[in-house]
Amino acid sequence: MVIKMAKEKLVKEITSMDEDFAKWYTDVVSKAELMDYSSVKGCMIIRPYGYAIWENIQKIMDGMFKETGHENVYMPMFIPEGLLQKEKDHVEGFAPEVAWVTHGGNEKLEERLCVRPTSETLFCDHYKNVIESYRDLPKLYNQWCSVVRWEKTTRPFLRSREFLWQEGHTIHATAEEAQAETIKMLNIYAEFAEKYLAMPVIKGIKTEKERFAGAESTYTIEALMHDGKALQSGTSHYFGDGFAKAFGIQYTDKDNKLVHPFQTSWGTTTRLIGAVIMTHGDDSGLVLPPAIAPIQLVVIPIATHKPGVTEKATEIYNRVNKICRAKIDLGEQSPGWKFAEYEMKGVPLRLEIGPRDIENNCCVIARRDNGEKITVSLNDLETKIPELLQAVRDGLFEKAANRRDSMTYTAKNLDEIIDIANNKPGFIKAMWCGERECEDMLKEKAGITSRCIPLQTEELTDTCVCCGKKAKHMLYWGKAY
Amino acid sequence: MVIKMAKEKLVKEITSMDEDFAKWYTDVVSKAELMDYSSVKGCMIIRPYGYAIWENIQKIMDGMFKETGHENVYMPMFIPEGLLQKEKDHVEGFAPEVAWVTHGGNEKLEERLCVRPTSETLFCDHYKNVIESYRDLPKLYNQWCSVVRWEKTTRPFLRSREFLWQEGHTIHATAEEAQAETIKMLNIYAEFAEKYLAMPVIKGIKTEKERFAGAESTYTIEALMHDGKALQSGTSHYFGDGFAKAFGIQYTDKDNKLVHPFQTSWGTTTRLIGAVIMTHGDDSGLVLPPAIAPIQLVVIPIATHKPGVTEKATEIYNRVNKICRAKIDLGEQSPGWKFAEYEMKGVPLRLEIGPRDIENNCCVIARRDNGEKITVSLNDLETKIPELLQAVRDGLFEKAANRRDSMTYTAKNLDEIIDIANNKPGFIKAMWCGERECEDMLKEKAGITSRCIPLQTEELTDTCVCCGKKAKHMLYWGKAY
Repeated sequence: MVIKMAKEKLVKEITSMDEDFAKWYTDVVSKAELMDYSSVKGCMIIRPYGYAIWENIQKIMDGMFKETGHENVYMPMFIPEGLLQKEKDHVEGFAPEVAWVTHGGNEKLEERLCVRPTSETLFCDHYKNVIESYRDLPKLYNQWCSVVRWEKTTRPFLRSREFLWQEGHTIHATAEEAQAETIKMLNIYAEFAEKYLAMPVIKGIKTEKERFAGAESTYTIEALMHDGKALQSGTSHYFGDGFAKAFGIQYTDKDNKLVHPFQTSWGTTTRLIGAVIMTHGDDSGLVLPPAIAPIQLVVIPIATHKPGVTEKATEIYNRVNKICRAKIDLGEQSPGWKFAEYEMKGVPLRLEIGPRDIENNCCVIARRDNGEKITVSLNDLETKIPELLQAVRDGLFEKAANRRDSMTYTAKNLDEIIDIANNKPGFIKAMWCGERECEDMLKEKAGITSRCIPLQTEELTDTCVCCGKKAKHMLYWGKAY
Repeated sequence: MVIKMAKEKLVKEITSMDEDFAKWYTDVVSKAELMDYSSVKGCMIIRPYGYAIWENIQKIMDGMFKETGHENVYMPMFIPEGLLQKEKDHVEGFAPEVAWVTHGGNEKLEERLCVRPTSETLFCDHYKNVIESYRDLPKLYNQWCSVVRWEKTTRPFLRSREFLWQEGHTIHATAEEAQAETIKMLNIYAEFAEKYLAMPVIKGIKTEKERFAGAESTYTIEALMHDGKALQSGTSHYFGDGFAKAFGIQYTDKDNKLVHPFQTSWGTTTRLIGAVIMTHGDDSGLVLPPAIAPIQLVVIPIATHKPGVTEKATEIYNRVNKICRAKIDLGEQSPGWKFAEYEMKGVPLRLEIGPRDIENNCCVIARRDNGEKITVSLNDLETKIPELLQAVRDGLFEKAANRRDSMTYTAKNLDEIIDIANNKPGFIKAMWCGERECEDMLKEKAGITSRCIPLQTEELTDTCVCCGKKAKHMLYWGKAY
């Protein structure tokens, strides 16, 4: 009883979003048992419920990679200092935030090794060994692993010193082919985010200031969180032949000439879990899109002291578990407690079945996304549940897209953009001259950064929102995680 | 043409097993493109074909873990020095061979972090946070990750400074339950090795000398390689409540008393790939058990210049790809070259189809395990291919079991065991008094170590093979990887 009450208290203990969004977030990740803090500062433990979400993300995304011809590999987790230094921009970008291994056992290493912050240098080192002729191209590789970046301030899933990710690394005979790959993977990320995470994203190109260290261009998908902050949710980089030149990778082309190949890389991380939480979550806790929910439907029997209820609920569970990831909760807690528990855990559908439902050969299914309760005939479960799961995904997407649109503003001049940045959380669309100075100024004066030049652009005005000079691009601006 | 000849040369370039087994092994792992050497000494790159084998191993094993109620989690890759030191035996066993991180970015860390060599200490640290009552037990956790052990001499897959593995970590209310878990996982490992890797194993208990650092008992599955050396292929440890005491993990039992729980851990690694190579491989290269083969059947058309052959081969490929992992090779090389290539890659079945076969509505299927060629009606592919894949697995298992049995010897006294150890590669069964001195002496005099006390024991004699005192156990002895 003490435990039961303690748990009831827990469920209620989530800080409301409006009161303190950051606190709401850390409450949700802890109380839904997604993660735990570890003894290693800035590194988190991903608990079973959190890891199951990541496994579902991996499974879907890995399938999309393989369908498009990519193969998985595994590179070492260490990079010798000399190797990291080969590409000038790359080392400048990453060296300040890597963890250094200096000793193996009791011996000091001759050369320091960094724990990979990203693996471009390792892939280049390998490509050099295995690519000789145009017949060896392209190589379309990906790896699932963890990487380390020694961040000062950390937050579960959003920014941690170690995080899980996938990093794709491809190498091609021509610039055109590599550019097409960069866009292809951007589109796969966007499709994944929208279809499976029900999270609308803006596809665009990063400005030079925000570009990946060593890339010629960086593409991104940007999502808008509940609090109006932007979250970069996946990036795809085109490297030209810069890395190939730095690492001396060459191949013999069809004309028997020795030339440099062209490369890309692209990545998404466990940050996507943070994105899902902050896109769909509410004051009752997590709200999970069905495609990645560890439990898609929970069966909760009502009035189990009445004869036949537990049996009927179990029979239904056995049926529905064949068509989705289902769970039945036969625990001693009250139905109300269980409702709150699975709401907190973000389970998309709850199936309630009690004595009167059994009499009427039906059950009640409640949607987590909007609270709607639908009475469903027990004859129709196999058709109705997949429909409802799809409806939850669609409902989540629509709600998130509407919110994002209602939080997207347009600014025409400096006063406007500062005013919006200070008073209206969200995306700001504005024209930009292309100069870094204007980005720096808006960072300083309005606390916002450029998110991307969207692929679907608009011509809002002729002049840069900041300096008033001739505009080159439309940019999305915002405060970002 | 130059490339073609170069490749033909490659296929032939595998050193024969009898000439130099170690060289044969490194030839096979390189030329079958399982791995590449990296710039980081002792760390290897797992290439797509090698990684696909690991993915198949993971998928099957992960399914077996989940069916038995285990959940995946992710712990940090770093362990603070103080945490590693909490369990005395454990730190003594691992500290000499860990990699130390001393700097994050440009700053020296206050406390050194080691890159996990194994994660008992991290799991204990987490259990302490999340276990309060008997209701919180058991926790049945597993993680797939990489670990680092700073080995002096390394060999691809068999012993590398970084390797991929799974590590299960469970915690239970009672000693009996934890002991049962230890045995359950040993049995799962044995079943996996025998059923899916077609690799016969001896299940047994390690002697105290060979036990895992910090364990009360260590169970093992031991396989015998082609060259007569033993390979420890998976271990399962029972910890009693030693770690719980060292880390202060306690729970409130049903009688409201605060007591220590009991723990296990168990692991298998990418070493299993090395085990498969050295169990089934031959002078033509790899031989892969069907369950883990990235390509289970390759379709090779014969006389593709004849009308209709390519079309028919493609039609057959489309059919068989529905029932197994198939590939078709429509490349320009000769059938003979292709045969050698896929033999080297260990593909279990080769389907040949030429003009005469088409006329007769049949094809030829060749088995990689024994070279047998079977004429199969095209009407029967869907039934015949699964049968043949099973036959390959069974054939491999039988061959390996027969070889192991024929290489297992019995020794009754010191002269005999030294003689066998010097002249006959393989397992040696012999009685043992239970004293470490005898293990040390046999290591020194005969170069062999105790592999395990088998669960299925025999009483060979009454006296220890080494000292002649009263025997306590039968041991398997051998030279080991």
